[in-house]
Amino acid sequence: MVKVMAVNAGSSSLKFQLLNMPSEEVITSGLVERIGQEVGNFVIKVNGEKRKLETPIPDHQVAVDLLLDALVKHHIVESLDEIDAVGHRVVHGGEDFNDSVVVDEDAVKKVEALAELAPLHNPANIIGYNAFKKALPHAGHVFVFDTAFHQTLDKERYLYPLPLEYYTDLKVRKYGAHGTSHKYVSQQAIEMLGNPKESRIIVCHLGNGASISAVQDGNCIDTSMGFTPLAGVMMGTRSGDVDPSVMPYLCKKLNKSVDEVLEIYNKKSGMLGISGISSDSRDIENALFNEGNERALLTGLLYARIVSKYIGQYYAELGGCDAIAFTAGVGENAAYLRRLIIDNVSRAFGVFLDEELNNIRSDENRVISHQYSQIKVMVIPTNEEVMIARDTVRLLEL
Amino acid sequence: MVKVMAVNAGSSSLKFQLLNMPSEEVITSGLVERIGQEVGNFVIKVNGEKRKLETPIPDHQVAVDLLLDALVKHHIVESLDEIDAVGHRVVHGGEDFNDSVVVDEDAVKKVEALAELAPLHNPANIIGYNAFKKALPHAGHVFVFDTAFHQTLDKERYLYPLPLEYYTDLKVRKYGAHGTSHKYVSQQAIEMLGNPKESRIIVCHLGNGASISAVQDGNCIDTSMGFTPLAGVMMGTRSGDVDPSVMPYLCKKLNKSVDEVLEIYNKKSGMLGISGISSDSRDIENALFNEGNERALLTGLLYARIVSKYIGQYYAELGGCDAIAFTAGVGENAAYLRRLIIDNVSRAFGVFLDEELNNIRSDENRVISHQYSQIKVMVIPTNEEVMIARDTVRLLEL
Repeated sequence: MVKVMAVNAGSSSLKFQLLNMPSEEVITSGLVERIGQEVGNFVIKVNGEKRKLETPIPDHQVAVDLLLDALVKHHIVESLDEIDAVGHRVVHGGEDFNDSVVVDEDAVKKVEALAELAPLHNPANIIGYNAFKKALPHAGHVFVFDTAFHQTLDKERYLYPLPLEYYTDLKVRKYGAHGTSHKYVSQQAIEMLGNPKESRIIVCHLGNGASISAVQDGNCIDTSMGFTPLAGVMMGTRSGDVDPSVMPYLCKKLNKSVDEVLEIYNKKSGMLGISGISSDSRDIENALFNEGNERALLTGLLYARIVSKYIGQYYAELGGCDAIAFTAGVGENAAYLRRLIIDNVSRAFGVFLDEELNNIRSDENRVISHQYSQIKVMVIPTNEEVMIARDTVRLLEL
Repeated sequence: MVKVMAVNAGSSSLKFQLLNMPSEEVITSGLVERIGQEVGNFVIKVNGEKRKLETPIPDHQVAVDLLLDALVKHHIVESLDEIDAVGHRVVHGGEDFNDSVVVDEDAVKKVEALAELAPLHNPANIIGYNAFKKALPHAGHVFVFDTAFHQTLDKERYLYPLPLEYYTDLKVRKYGAHGTSHKYVSQQAIEMLGNPKESRIIVCHLGNGASISAVQDGNCIDTSMGFTPLAGVMMGTRSGDVDPSVMPYLCKKLNKSVDEVLEIYNKKSGMLGISGISSDSRDIENALFNEGNERALLTGLLYARIVSKYIGQYYAELGGCDAIAFTAGVGENAAYLRRLIIDNVSRAFGVFLDEELNNIRSDENRVISHQYSQIKVMVIPTNEEVMIARDTVRLLEL
């Protein structure tokens, strides 16, 4: 039995989960927020109960020390030596990483260099790594890349029809994102199909960020996010795909810079932009079913239409489909959106839901399609932490 | 029998075709180019033979007078009074026009106002109309809009997931283009299916510009071009869809304005950008089959992949598909691209070509799929002029 810490470090936050492996039992989990602000937040679960602390947390090193001290103080571990390994989520692995990697100097340098493609995230990931490395020098450290699972895409899927030198010289191509989730969920789906030799899975990771992927025999062949996580389907506040001409038009009409308009695409669009209510699908669902709000209705219809078009694309690319798997906040919980999405492709692909199963709330993996549906529809709660821990154990051969 | 002139006026050019209706027999056709430049070109067919003239053509009025004089001079008509009507192609009809319209003051005003959405095209269309109106005051005049056929799209297909006020206040939405061609080709396809009551057609208009549409029972329900003709599939020099974040990134990297980068998306991308050879699929085909050029190979694969993904989308939206119809320069002639495209969706939808039929060169409507294919694949030479003439006759009740 080994103990693995799965870490997701953002620019001002740090999520963590400590797991026993290979049992995958969660020992504790928590969150440090508002790092560098006047007052920071620290939450950790002790015997299933949330302990909260408000205190200044000036930097990531303080955050890491705080959480490691809490582990000992609350007797979650008796000594920090019990933590065998740390798996660090890294947002962008570019073309350098098609799998997770044991951290060495070279890996750190490469991740730092890739900051150009993920300026908000990769530097934060490295800061988080450095803080853990300093506090736990004897543990093994692994980088788990959010892009790695999509590195199996071939050129005709990852290139944009722009001058080719923008790819060769400037690295402009589709990288995808949410790879750890797509990998975990597709593996679960394949298991639920009974581990057939051939499988064609469409994963709909629908959270505040959202992406769809096409997974053939366990390998990702296409995905909806692109050069950045703005592309693809409509999201909580992100637009997804838009005619490229719209941005210059809006720059002129709104008298804004291209960066300001990009900010609108990222922060004010998607469900928030169409509904005018919220980026949270629960608020939109409430407005729809409690008030009959028309923009809430439109938001759901537009969202479902866009997702279902990607399902059509990926059905074509996969040459058929054995399972459609919904995951992440919206995908796991918004039964009415799942119904709209599946209804949109029902006639074309002979897929339909069991209405009762679709409406059950549960944290378990489950099939929600009708027994006669030609494609199994599943809800699979994502678990990036387990995937990070699995990769960490695999690479360190623990 | 009536004589109808179908006109397509650009900013420095004017294409025309004179037809007998309802027989649809072409009496003559021709082209005026380089209007306003030092030396203009005028070409007109007389008894099937091209007559060429180089002369200064300072403006559209001179161009129209030149071509009308030529009609009489070459005894194509004995008097201009024989021309009963003129149908004018107009690029952008916005949300104001869901069908062609008999020209009146109101229509002219609306088309002028829509110049904001098509600044290069609508003003030229009006200039062309004014010149013909002056020369043929007694003829009927009809505007035929390139967007009208797509006005049957519903909100969940035409809205972008941006703040909704960009649609309500700034008119940002999907309008589509090539509508006259999509209408003509889908009508031909339905006829070739034997005029069934229900039909689901995917039209692939693949020319230098390219767009795909989904036509259900004769009505367009979705199309790949968007706010402008830049969106959708890869084209001769246009990129089609790209992650919206790429444009701001390129602005910075290339130190160019957003308009300069947009120009690259429009003029230097697509087949030209990927191949580095040409925007013309014939040149790329030559480089591939005569030299084994790798970038030419990549261009074809990328192009076919993108088109086939739209076929997957539209198959899902239509709830199946009865016919896939290829049209326009590339669609009518590039047999190897048709094969790549259909191969990509073959397994998913049970569609396959008859290799021999696919390789026949012909100007006729024809089926090129195998007899056991579950979807009929057709090649249908587009004919926007006939469609313009048909609409003109229908609206003027000639």
